[in-house]
Amino acid sequence: MPRYALLIEYNGAPFSGWQRQKEHPSVQQAIEESLRILEPECETIGAAGRTDAGVHAMGQVAHCDMVKDWDPFALAAAINQHLKPKPIAIVKVARVADDWHARFSAFERRYMFRMISRRAPLVHEAGLAWHVKHDIDAAAMQLGADRLIGHHDFTTFRSTMCQADSPNKTLDAARVEVFDVPYGQEIRLYFRARSFLHNQVRSFVGTLERVGAGRWTPDDVTTALEARDRTACGPVCPPHGLYLMSVGYPSDPLGVDTSEHG
Amino acid sequence: MPRYALLIEYNGAPFSGWQRQKEHPSVQQAIEESLRILEPECETIGAAGRTDAGVHAMGQVAHCDMVKDWDPFALAAAINQHLKPKPIAIVKVARVADDWHARFSAFERRYMFRMISRRAPLVHEAGLAWHVKHDIDAAAMQLGADRLIGHHDFTTFRSTMCQADSPNKTLDAARVEVFDVPYGQEIRLYFRARSFLHNQVRSFVGTLERVGAGRWTPDDVTTALEARDRTACGPVCPPHGLYLMSVGYPSDPLGVDTSEHG
Repeated sequence: MPRYALLIEYNGAPFSGWQRQKEHPSVQQAIEESLRILEPECETIGAAGRTDAGVHAMGQVAHCDMVKDWDPFALAAAINQHLKPKPIAIVKVARVADDWHARFSAFERRYMFRMISRRAPLVHEAGLAWHVKHDIDAAAMQLGADRLIGHHDFTTFRSTMCQADSPNKTLDAARVEVFDVPYGQEIRLYFRARSFLHNQVRSFVGTLERVGAGRWTPDDVTTALEARDRTACGPVCPPHGLYLMSVGYPSDPLGVDTSEHG
Repeated sequence: MPRYALLIEYNGAPFSGWQRQKEHPSVQQAIEESLRILEPECETIGAAGRTDAGVHAMGQVAHCDMVKDWDPFALAAAINQHLKPKPIAIVKVARVADDWHARFSAFERRYMFRMISRRAPLVHEAGLAWHVKHDIDAAAMQLGADRLIGHHDFTTFRSTMCQADSPNKTLDAARVEVFDVPYGQEIRLYFRARSFLHNQVRSFVGTLERVGAGRWTPDDVTTALEARDRTACGPVCPPHGLYLMSVGYPSDPLGVDTSEHG
Protein backbone atom coordinates (compact mmCIF):
# COMPACT_ATOMS: atom_id res chain seq x y z
CA MET A 1 0.00 0.00 0.00
CA PRO A 2 1.60 3.29 -1.08
CA ARG A 3 2.07 5.80 1.72
CA TYR A 4 1.46 9.52 1.31
CA ALA A 5 2.45 12.54 3.39
CA LEU A 6 -0.25 15.22 3.64
CA LEU A 7 0.53 18.87 4.31
CA ILE A 8 -2.52 20.35 6.02
CA GLU A 9 -3.91 23.81 6.83
CA TYR A 10 -6.85 24.32 9.13
CA ASN A 11 -8.71 26.88 11.14
CA GLY A 12 -9.08 25.27 14.56
CA ALA A 13 -12.17 27.19 15.68
CA PRO A 14 -14.85 24.57 14.94
CA PHE A 15 -12.77 21.60 16.09
CA SER A 16 -11.98 19.96 19.41
CA GLY A 17 -8.40 19.72 18.16
CA TRP A 18 -6.51 17.42 15.81
CA GLN A 19 -7.25 14.18 17.56
CA ARG A 20 -10.38 12.13 17.01
CA GLN A 21 -12.81 12.21 19.95
CA LYS A 22 -16.02 10.37 20.44
CA GLU A 23 -18.47 13.24 20.73
CA HIS A 24 -16.76 16.26 19.23
CA PRO A 25 -15.68 17.08 15.68
CA SER A 26 -11.93 16.85 15.10
CA VAL A 27 -9.63 17.61 12.19
CA GLN A 28 -8.46 13.98 12.12
CA GLN A 29 -12.01 12.72 11.85
CA ALA A 30 -12.85 15.14 9.02
CA ILE A 31 -9.84 14.04 6.96
CA GLU A 32 -10.38 10.34 7.67
CA GLU A 33 -14.02 10.61 6.58
CA SER A 34 -12.92 12.24 3.32
CA LEU A 35 -10.31 9.53 2.74
CA ARG A 36 -12.91 6.81 3.35
CA ILE A 37 -15.12 8.26 0.64
CA LEU A 38 -12.16 7.70 -1.70
CA GLU A 39 -11.14 4.31 -0.28
CA PRO A 40 -13.50 2.74 2.29
CA GLU A 41 -10.74 0.59 3.81
CA CYS A 42 -8.61 3.62 4.71
CA GLU A 43 -7.18 3.34 8.21
CA THR A 44 -6.65 5.84 11.01
CA ILE A 45 -4.17 8.58 10.18
CA GLY A 46 -1.56 10.05 12.53
CA ALA A 47 -0.19 13.60 12.60
CA ALA A 48 3.07 15.20 13.66
CA GLY A 49 1.43 17.49 16.23
CA ARG A 50 -1.75 16.92 18.23
CA THR A 51 -2.97 20.49 18.23
CA ASP A 52 -5.47 21.48 20.93
CA ALA A 53 -9.03 22.71 20.50
CA GLY A 54 -9.06 26.05 18.67
CA VAL A 55 -5.42 25.92 17.57
CA HIS A 56 -4.78 26.55 13.85
CA ALA A 57 -2.31 24.97 11.46
CA MET A 58 -0.52 26.22 8.38
CA GLY A 59 1.75 23.18 8.16
CA GLN A 60 0.40 20.15 9.99
CA VAL A 61 1.67 16.88 8.53
CA ALA A 62 -0.01 13.47 8.56
CA HIS A 63 0.43 10.29 6.56
CA CYS A 64 -2.02 7.80 5.10
CA ASP A 65 -1.80 4.47 3.30
CA MET A 66 -3.88 4.10 0.17
CA VAL A 67 -4.80 1.01 -1.83
CA LYS A 68 -4.61 2.71 -5.21
CA ASP A 69 -1.51 4.37 -6.60
CA TRP A 70 -2.69 7.98 -6.52
CA ASP A 71 -1.17 10.90 -8.35
CA PRO A 72 -0.31 13.30 -5.47
CA PHE A 73 -2.09 16.29 -7.05
CA ALA A 74 -5.18 14.21 -7.73
CA LEU A 75 -5.22 12.86 -4.17
CA ALA A 76 -5.01 16.37 -2.70
CA ALA A 77 -7.82 17.61 -4.94
CA ALA A 78 -10.01 14.61 -4.15
CA ILE A 79 -9.62 14.95 -0.38
CA ASN A 80 -10.26 18.70 -0.58
CA GLN A 81 -13.40 18.09 -2.60
CA HIS A 82 -14.86 16.03 0.25
CA LEU A 83 -13.60 18.33 3.03
CA LYS A 84 -15.80 21.21 1.78
CA PRO A 85 -17.02 23.40 3.41
CA LYS A 86 -14.92 22.64 6.48
CA PRO A 87 -12.00 25.04 7.01
CA ILE A 88 -9.39 22.38 6.26
CA ALA A 89 -7.24 22.15 3.13
CA ILE A 90 -4.67 19.63 1.94
CA VAL A 91 -2.13 22.01 0.42
CA LYS A 92 0.35 19.40 -0.75
CA VAL A 93 0.71 15.63 -1.01
CA ALA A 94 3.91 13.61 -1.52
CA ARG A 95 4.56 9.91 -1.97
CA VAL A 96 6.82 8.69 0.86
CA ALA A 97 8.60 5.45 1.85
CA ASP A 98 6.50 2.78 3.54
CA ASP A 99 8.33 3.30 6.86
CA TRP A 100 8.09 7.10 6.81
CA HIS A 101 6.05 8.35 9.76
CA ALA A 102 4.55 11.83 10.17
CA ARG A 103 5.17 11.81 13.91
CA PHE A 104 8.18 9.58 14.51
CA SER A 105 10.21 10.74 11.50
CA ALA A 106 9.87 14.40 12.53
CA PHE A 107 12.85 16.11 14.16
CA GLU A 108 11.31 19.52 14.88
CA ARG A 109 8.09 21.51 15.16
CA ARG A 110 7.67 25.23 14.58
CA TYR A 111 4.84 27.26 16.08
CA MET A 112 3.84 30.88 15.58
CA PHE A 113 1.60 32.96 17.82
CA ARG A 114 -0.17 36.14 16.65
CA MET A 115 -1.05 38.83 19.18
CA ILE A 116 -2.54 42.21 18.19
CA SER A 117 -2.38 45.16 20.54
CA ARG A 118 -4.91 47.91 19.87
CA ARG A 119 -7.82 49.63 21.57
CA ALA A 120 -10.55 48.68 19.11
CA PRO A 121 -11.88 45.13 18.77
CA LEU A 122 -10.37 43.00 15.98
CA VAL A 123 -12.42 42.69 12.82
CA HIS A 124 -10.52 41.07 9.96
CA GLU A 125 -8.19 39.19 12.34
CA ALA A 126 -10.95 38.14 14.77
CA GLY A 127 -10.38 34.48 15.63
CA LEU A 128 -6.98 34.57 13.94
CA ALA A 129 -5.02 36.49 16.61
CA TRP A 130 -5.20 37.21 20.34
CA HIS A 131 -6.45 40.72 21.04
CA VAL A 132 -4.85 42.68 23.88
CA LYS A 133 -5.89 46.26 24.55
CA HIS A 134 -2.76 47.53 26.30
CA ASP A 135 0.63 48.42 24.86
CA ILE A 136 3.19 45.63 24.51
CA ASP A 137 6.95 46.04 24.90
CA ALA A 138 8.16 43.49 22.36
CA ALA A 139 11.83 44.00 23.25
CA ALA A 140 11.09 43.06 26.86
CA MET A 141 9.19 39.99 25.62
CA GLN A 142 12.25 38.93 23.65
CA LEU A 143 14.41 39.27 26.77
CA GLY A 144 11.93 37.08 28.62
CA ALA A 145 11.80 34.57 25.74
CA ASP A 146 15.61 34.31 25.79
CA ARG A 147 15.37 32.88 29.32
CA LEU A 148 13.39 29.91 28.00
CA ILE A 149 15.80 28.84 25.25
CA GLY A 150 17.87 25.72 25.91
CA HIS A 151 17.43 22.40 27.70
CA HIS A 152 15.24 22.73 30.78
CA ASP A 153 12.78 21.01 33.04
CA PHE A 154 9.63 22.78 31.77
CA THR A 155 7.24 21.57 34.49
CA THR A 156 6.12 25.19 35.01
CA PHE A 157 5.05 25.45 31.38
CA ARG A 158 3.19 22.20 30.83
CA SER A 159 -0.40 21.32 31.48
CA THR A 160 -1.09 19.11 34.45
CA MET A 161 -2.81 16.87 31.87
CA CYS A 162 0.43 16.45 29.90
CA GLN A 163 1.16 12.80 29.19
CA ALA A 164 4.82 13.12 28.22
CA ASP A 165 7.16 10.88 30.23
CA SER A 166 9.51 13.71 31.08
CA PRO A 167 9.18 17.48 31.50
CA ASN A 168 12.69 17.93 30.06
CA LYS A 169 12.78 19.46 26.60
CA THR A 170 15.08 21.63 24.53
CA LEU A 171 13.68 24.89 23.17
CA ASP A 172 15.85 25.68 20.15
CA ALA A 173 14.49 29.13 19.28
CA ALA A 174 12.08 31.74 20.62
CA ARG A 175 11.87 34.91 18.57
CA VAL A 176 9.60 37.95 18.96
CA GLU A 177 8.74 40.13 15.95
CA VAL A 178 6.71 43.31 15.99
CA PHE A 179 5.24 45.38 13.18
CA ASP A 180 2.70 48.13 12.77
CA VAL A 181 -0.84 47.27 11.73
CA PRO A 182 -3.71 49.74 11.31
CA TYR A 183 -4.25 51.48 14.66
CA GLY A 184 -2.08 49.10 16.63
CA GLN A 185 0.80 46.66 16.63
CA GLU A 186 1.05 43.00 15.83
CA ILE A 187 3.46 40.86 17.83
CA ARG A 188 4.43 37.47 16.43
CA LEU A 189 6.22 34.89 18.55
CA TYR A 190 8.04 32.01 16.89
CA PHE A 191 9.05 28.85 18.78
CA ARG A 192 11.08 25.93 17.51
CA ALA A 193 11.85 22.63 19.27
CA ARG A 194 12.17 18.92 18.56
CA SER A 195 8.85 18.53 20.35
CA PHE A 196 6.67 20.42 22.80
CA LEU A 197 4.84 19.53 26.00
CA HIS A 198 1.07 19.87 26.28
CA ASN A 199 0.13 23.58 26.43
CA GLN A 200 3.80 24.55 26.42
CA VAL A 201 3.59 27.26 23.75
CA ARG A 202 0.44 28.82 25.20
CA SER A 203 2.03 28.76 28.66
CA PHE A 204 5.09 30.53 27.22
CA VAL A 205 2.99 33.14 25.42
CA GLY A 206 0.74 33.85 28.39
CA THR A 207 3.80 34.34 30.58
CA LEU A 208 5.68 36.46 28.04
CA GLU A 209 2.60 38.64 27.53
CA ARG A 210 2.90 39.59 31.21
CA VAL A 211 6.48 40.68 30.47
CA GLY A 212 5.34 42.65 27.40
CA ALA A 213 2.68 44.34 29.52
CA GLY A 214 5.32 45.40 32.06
CA ARG A 215 3.87 43.28 34.86
CA TRP A 216 6.68 40.72 34.91
CA THR A 217 10.42 41.19 34.40
CA PRO A 218 12.60 38.80 32.40
CA ASP A 219 14.01 37.70 35.77
CA ASP A 220 10.51 36.65 36.80
CA VAL A 221 10.48 34.30 33.80
CA THR A 222 13.68 32.66 35.02
CA THR A 223 12.22 32.40 38.53
CA ALA A 224 9.09 30.73 37.15
CA LEU A 225 11.12 28.32 35.02
CA GLU A 226 13.36 27.37 37.92
CA ALA A 227 10.38 26.83 40.23
CA ARG A 228 9.43 23.72 38.21
CA ASP A 229 5.95 24.32 39.51
CA ARG A 230 2.86 24.64 37.31
CA THR A 231 1.37 27.27 39.61
CA ALA A 232 4.36 29.57 38.92
CA CYS A 233 3.30 29.92 35.25
CA GLY A 234 1.66 33.07 33.93
CA PRO A 235 -1.95 32.79 32.66
CA VAL A 236 -2.21 30.37 29.73
CA CYS A 237 -3.16 32.41 26.64
CA PRO A 238 -6.14 31.57 24.39
CA PRO A 239 -5.66 29.08 21.53
CA HIS A 240 -6.89 31.17 18.60
CA GLY A 241 -3.59 33.03 18.04
CA LEU A 242 -1.57 29.81 17.78
CA TYR A 243 -0.48 28.19 14.51
CA LEU A 244 1.47 24.97 13.91
CA MET A 245 3.64 26.36 11.09
CA SER A 246 5.79 23.45 9.95
CA VAL A 247 7.27 20.12 10.87
CA GLY A 248 10.88 19.26 10.05
CA TYR A 249 11.93 15.94 8.50
CA PRO A 250 15.44 14.70 7.61
CA SER A 251 14.85 14.84 3.85
CA ASP A 252 11.64 16.85 3.69
CA PRO A 253 9.35 15.03 1.25
CA LEU A 254 6.95 17.98 1.14
CA GLY A 255 9.56 20.65 0.38
CA VAL A 256 8.26 23.12 2.97
CA ASP A 257 9.82 26.58 3.00
CA THR A 258 10.49 27.29 6.69
CA SER A 259 12.48 30.48 6.15
CA GLU A 260 9.81 32.58 7.86
CA HIS A 261 8.85 30.09 10.56
CA GLY A 262 11.40 31.16 13.13
CA MET B 1 -24.57 69.51 18.70
CA PRO B 2 -20.93 68.47 18.37
CA ARG B 3 -20.13 66.49 15.22
CA TYR B 4 -17.79 63.50 15.19
CA ALA B 5 -16.04 61.66 12.37
CA LEU B 6 -15.94 57.87 12.82
CA LEU B 7 -13.28 55.68 11.23
CA ILE B 8 -14.82 52.25 10.75
CA GLU B 9 -13.64 48.70 9.99
CA TYR B 10 -16.01 45.92 9.12
CA ASN B 11 -16.23 42.45 7.67
CA GLY B 12 -19.01 42.74 5.10
CA ALA B 13 -20.03 39.06 5.05
CA PRO B 14 -23.09 39.25 7.33
CA PHE B 15 -24.38 42.56 5.97
CA SER B 16 -26.43 43.65 2.99
CA GLY B 17 -23.92 46.48 2.60
CA TRP B 18 -23.35 49.82 4.29
CA GLN B 19 -26.74 51.31 3.63
CA ARG B 20 -29.78 50.75 5.82
CA GLN B 21 -32.43 48.51 4.24
CA LYS B 22 -35.81 47.53 5.51
CA GLU B 23 -35.45 43.78 5.80
CA HIS B 24 -31.72 43.07 5.84
CA PRO B 25 -29.02 43.87 8.38
CA SER B 26 -26.68 46.67 7.34
CA VAL B 27 -23.56 48.23 8.81
CA GLN B 28 -25.28 51.61 9.02
CA GLN B 29 -28.15 50.15 11.01
CA ALA B 30 -25.80 48.38 13.44
CA ILE B 31 -23.88 51.58 14.18
CA GLU B 32 -27.03 53.71 14.43
CA GLU B 33 -28.55 51.26 16.91
CA SER B 34 -25.39 51.42 19.04
CA LEU B 35 -25.44 55.23 18.92
CA ARG B 36 -29.09 55.30 19.99
CA ILE B 37 -28.28 53.27 23.07
CA LEU B 38 -25.89 56.11 23.98
CA GLU B 39 -28.19 58.93 22.88
CA PRO B 40 -31.75 57.97 21.91
CA GLU B 41 -32.19 61.11 19.78
CA CYS B 42 -29.26 60.24 17.52
CA GLU B 43 -30.11 60.78 13.84
CA THR B 44 -29.28 58.84 10.70
CA ILE B 45 -25.58 58.72 9.89
CA GLY B 46 -24.01 59.03 6.44
CA ALA B 47 -20.82 57.41 5.13
CA ALA B 48 -18.23 58.29 2.52
CA GLY B 49 -18.75 55.10 0.52
CA ARG B 50 -21.87 52.98 0.21
CA THR B 51 -20.18 49.61 0.08
CA ASP B 52 -22.15 46.73 -1.42
CA ALA B 53 -23.25 43.51 0.26
CA GLY B 54 -20.24 41.45 1.29
CA VAL B 55 -17.67 44.21 0.74
CA HIS B 56 -15.29 44.88 3.65
CA ALA B 57 -13.86 48.12 5.01
CA MET B 58 -10.64 49.01 6.74
CA GLY B 59 -11.24 52.74 6.54
CA GLN B 60 -14.89 53.63 6.02
CA VAL B 61 -15.75 57.10 7.36
CA ALA B 62 -19.08 58.37 8.67
CA HIS B 63 -20.13 61.31 10.83
CA CYS B 64 -22.65 61.68 13.61
CA ASP B 65 -24.03 64.53 15.71
CA MET B 66 -24.18 63.94 19.45
CA VAL B 67 -25.99 65.87 22.17
CA LYS B 68 -23.29 65.41 24.77
CA ASP B 69 -19.72 66.60 24.39
CA TRP B 70 -18.00 63.20 24.17
CA ASP B 71 -14.33 62.50 24.61
CA PRO B 72 -13.41 60.85 21.27
CA PHE B 73 -11.75 57.79 22.90
CA ALA B 74 -14.73 57.30 25.19
CA LEU B 75 -17.18 57.59 22.29
CA ALA B 76 -15.29 54.96 20.26
CA ALA B 77 -15.18 52.58 23.22
CA ALA B 78 -18.88 53.09 24.00
CA ILE B 79 -20.01 52.41 20.43
CA ASN B 80 -17.75 49.35 20.20
CA GLN B 81 -19.19 48.03 23.44
CA HIS B 82 -22.66 47.98 21.91
CA LEU B 83 -21.54 46.69 18.50
CA LYS B 84 -20.36 43.39 20.01
CA PRO B 85 -20.31 40.70 18.70
CA LYS B 86 -20.87 42.10 15.22
CA PRO B 87 -17.71 42.28 13.07
CA ILE B 88 -17.64 46.09 13.10
CA ALA B 89 -15.19 48.28 15.00
CA ILE B 90 -14.86 52.03 15.42
CA VAL B 91 -11.08 52.34 15.26
CA LYS B 92 -10.87 56.11 15.71
CA VAL B 93 -13.11 59.07 16.46
CA ALA B 94 -12.35 62.76 15.90
CA ARG B 95 -14.30 65.92 16.70
CA VAL B 96 -14.98 67.82 13.44
CA ALA B 97 -16.53 71.13 12.38
CA ASP B 98 -20.32 71.31 12.26
CA ASP B 99 -20.29 71.59 8.45
CA TRP B 100 -17.82 68.73 7.92
CA HIS B 101 -19.45 65.91 5.94
CA ALA B 102 -18.14 62.35 5.60
CA ARG B 103 -19.40 62.09 2.03
CA PHE B 104 -19.36 65.61 0.61
CA SER B 105 -16.09 66.74 2.19
CA ALA B 106 -14.24 63.71 0.76
CA PHE B 107 -11.99 64.21 -2.26
CA GLU B 108 -10.89 60.62 -2.86
CA ARG B 109 -11.59 56.97 -2.10
CA ARG B 110 -9.05 54.14 -2.07
CA TYR B 111 -9.99 50.51 -2.56
CA MET B 112 -7.92 47.35 -2.35
CA PHE B 113 -8.79 43.94 -3.75
CA ARG B 114 -7.19 40.69 -2.52
CA MET B 115 -6.95 37.71 -4.88
CA ILE B 116 -5.14 34.49 -3.98
CA SER B 117 -4.03 32.07 -6.68
CA ARG B 118 -3.40 28.51 -5.50
CA ARG B 119 -4.71 24.99 -6.09
CA ALA B 120 -5.93 24.26 -2.55
CA PRO B 121 -9.00 25.96 -1.04
CA LEU B 122 -8.35 28.99 1.18
CA VAL B 123 -8.45 28.40 4.92
CA HIS B 124 -7.19 31.36 6.93
CA GLU B 125 -8.09 33.85 4.17
CA ALA B 126 -11.48 32.28 3.38
CA GLY B 127 -14.00 35.11 3.04
CA LEU B 128 -11.18 37.66 3.05
CA ALA B 129 -9.84 37.13 -0.48
CA TRP B 130 -11.03 35.85 -3.84
CA HIS B 131 -9.70 32.37 -4.56
CA VAL B 132 -8.63 31.56 -8.13
CA LYS B 133 -7.10 28.17 -8.92
CA HIS B 134 -5.09 29.09 -12.03
CA ASP B 135 -1.85 31.02 -12.35
CA ILE B 136 -2.06 34.79 -12.63
CA ASP B 137 0.29 36.98 -14.65
CA ALA B 138 0.36 40.09 -12.46
CA ALA B 139 2.52 42.06 -14.90
CA ALA B 140 -0.10 41.56 -17.62
CA MET B 141 -2.80 42.67 -15.15
CA GLN B 142 -0.85 45.88 -14.51
CA LEU B 143 -0.65 46.53 -18.27
CA GLY B 144 -4.41 46.05 -18.45
CA ALA B 145 -4.98 48.28 -15.41
CA ASP B 146 -2.90 51.04 -17.03
CA ARG B 147 -5.50 51.24 -19.80
CA LEU B 148 -8.15 52.26 -17.25
CA ILE B 149 -6.27 55.14 -15.65
CA GLY B 150 -7.45 58.65 -16.55
CA HIS B 151 -10.72 60.39 -17.35
CA HIS B 152 -13.12 58.11 -19.22
CA ASP B 153 -16.72 57.23 -19.86
CA PHE B 154 -16.86 54.08 -17.71
CA THR B 155 -20.26 52.82 -18.89
CA THR B 156 -18.70 49.38 -19.52
CA PHE B 157 -17.61 49.15 -15.90
CA ARG B 158 -20.70 50.28 -14.03
CA SER B 159 -23.73 48.34 -12.92
CA THR B 160 -26.91 48.90 -14.87
CA MET B 161 -28.36 49.81 -11.45
CA CYS B 162 -25.86 52.66 -11.00
CA GLN B 163 -27.62 55.88 -10.03
CA ALA B 164 -24.79 58.30 -10.79
CA ASP B 165 -25.79 61.13 -13.18
CA SER B 166 -22.81 60.56 -15.43
CA PRO B 167 -20.61 57.57 -16.32
CA ASN B 168 -17.60 59.91 -16.62
CA LYS B 169 -15.04 59.51 -13.86
CA THR B 170 -11.30 59.93 -13.41
CA LEU B 171 -9.34 56.90 -12.18
CA ASP B 172 -6.22 58.37 -10.58
CA ALA B 173 -4.32 55.16 -9.84
CA ALA B 174 -4.56 51.41 -10.48
CA ARG B 175 -1.64 49.39 -9.15
CA VAL B 176 -1.10 45.62 -9.06
CA GLU B 177 1.15 44.04 -6.43
CA VAL B 178 2.08 40.39 -6.16
CA PHE B 179 3.79 38.42 -3.42
CA ASP B 180 4.32 34.81 -2.46
CA VAL B 181 2.05 33.22 0.11
CA PRO B 182 2.19 29.57 1.26
CA TYR B 183 1.63 27.36 -1.80
CA GLY B 184 0.48 30.19 -4.03
CA GLN B 185 0.55 33.87 -4.83
CA GLU B 186 -1.45 36.79 -3.56
CA ILE B 187 -2.31 39.58 -5.97
CA ARG B 188 -3.44 42.91 -4.54
CA LEU B 189 -5.03 45.57 -6.71
CA TYR B 190 -5.20 49.16 -5.50
CA PHE B 191 -7.55 51.74 -7.03
CA ARG B 192 -7.78 55.44 -6.25
CA ALA B 193 -10.33 57.97 -7.53
CA ARG B 194 -12.35 60.95 -6.37
CA SER B 195 -15.36 58.64 -6.48
CA PHE B 196 -16.41 55.38 -8.07
CA LEU B 197 -19.48 54.19 -9.96
CA HIS B 198 -21.62 51.33 -8.67
CA ASN B 199 -19.72 48.01 -9.07
CA GLN B 200 -16.86 49.83 -10.80
CA VAL B 201 -14.01 48.24 -8.83
CA ARG B 202 -15.44 44.73 -9.04
CA SER B 203 -16.00 45.22 -12.78
CA PHE B 204 -12.37 46.33 -13.12
CA VAL B 205 -11.06 43.36 -11.11
CA GLY B 206 -13.19 40.79 -12.91
CA THR B 207 -11.96 42.13 -16.24
CA LEU B 208 -8.31 42.36 -15.17
CA GLU B 209 -8.45 38.80 -13.81
CA ARG B 210 -9.19 37.67 -17.36
CA VAL B 211 -6.00 39.46 -18.43
CA GLY B 212 -4.04 37.85 -15.58
CA ALA B 213 -5.37 34.46 -16.63
CA GLY B 214 -4.16 35.04 -20.19
CA ARG B 215 -7.65 35.04 -21.67
CA TRP B 216 -7.75 38.76 -22.46
CA THR B 217 -4.97 41.06 -23.69
CA PRO B 218 -4.45 44.60 -22.41
CA ASP B 219 -5.78 45.73 -25.81
CA ASP B 220 -9.03 43.90 -25.03
CA VAL B 221 -9.36 46.12 -21.94
CA THR B 222 -9.10 49.22 -24.10
CA THR B 223 -11.63 47.78 -26.53
CA ALA B 224 -14.05 47.06 -23.67
CA LEU B 225 -13.58 50.56 -22.23
CA GLU B 226 -14.13 52.23 -25.59
CA ALA B 227 -17.25 50.17 -26.27
CA ARG B 228 -19.07 52.09 -23.50
CA ASP B 229 -21.30 49.05 -23.28
CA ARG B 230 -22.00 47.13 -20.06
CA THR B 231 -22.08 43.84 -21.96
CA ALA B 232 -18.43 44.38 -23.02
CA CYS B 233 -17.28 44.06 -19.39
CA GLY B 234 -15.55 40.95 -18.07
CA PRO B 235 -17.34 38.93 -15.38
CA VAL B 236 -17.89 41.01 -12.23
CA CYS B 237 -15.77 39.47 -9.44
CA PRO B 238 -17.16 38.46 -6.02
CA PRO B 239 -17.35 41.08 -3.24
CA HIS B 240 -15.40 39.31 -0.50
CA GLY B 241 -11.94 40.31 -1.73
CA LEU B 242 -12.82 44.03 -1.79
CA TYR B 243 -11.88 46.52 0.95
CA LEU B 244 -12.64 50.23 1.24
CA MET B 245 -9.21 51.23 2.53
CA SER B 246 -9.42 54.96 3.14
CA VAL B 247 -11.19 58.19 2.31
CA GLY B 248 -9.28 61.39 1.66
CA TYR B 249 -10.25 64.77 3.19
CA PRO B 250 -8.62 68.20 2.70
CA SER B 251 -7.28 68.35 6.26
CA ASP B 252 -7.76 64.78 7.40
CA PRO B 253 -9.31 64.96 10.88
CA LEU B 254 -8.70 61.25 11.46
CA GLY B 255 -5.00 61.28 10.55
CA VAL B 256 -5.19 58.18 8.36
CA ASP B 257 -1.91 56.78 7.04
CA THR B 258 -2.62 56.05 3.36
CA SER B 259 0.97 55.23 2.40
CA GLU B 260 0.09 51.61 1.64
CA HIS B 261 -3.34 52.23 0.13
CA GLY B 262 -2.17 52.76 -3.46
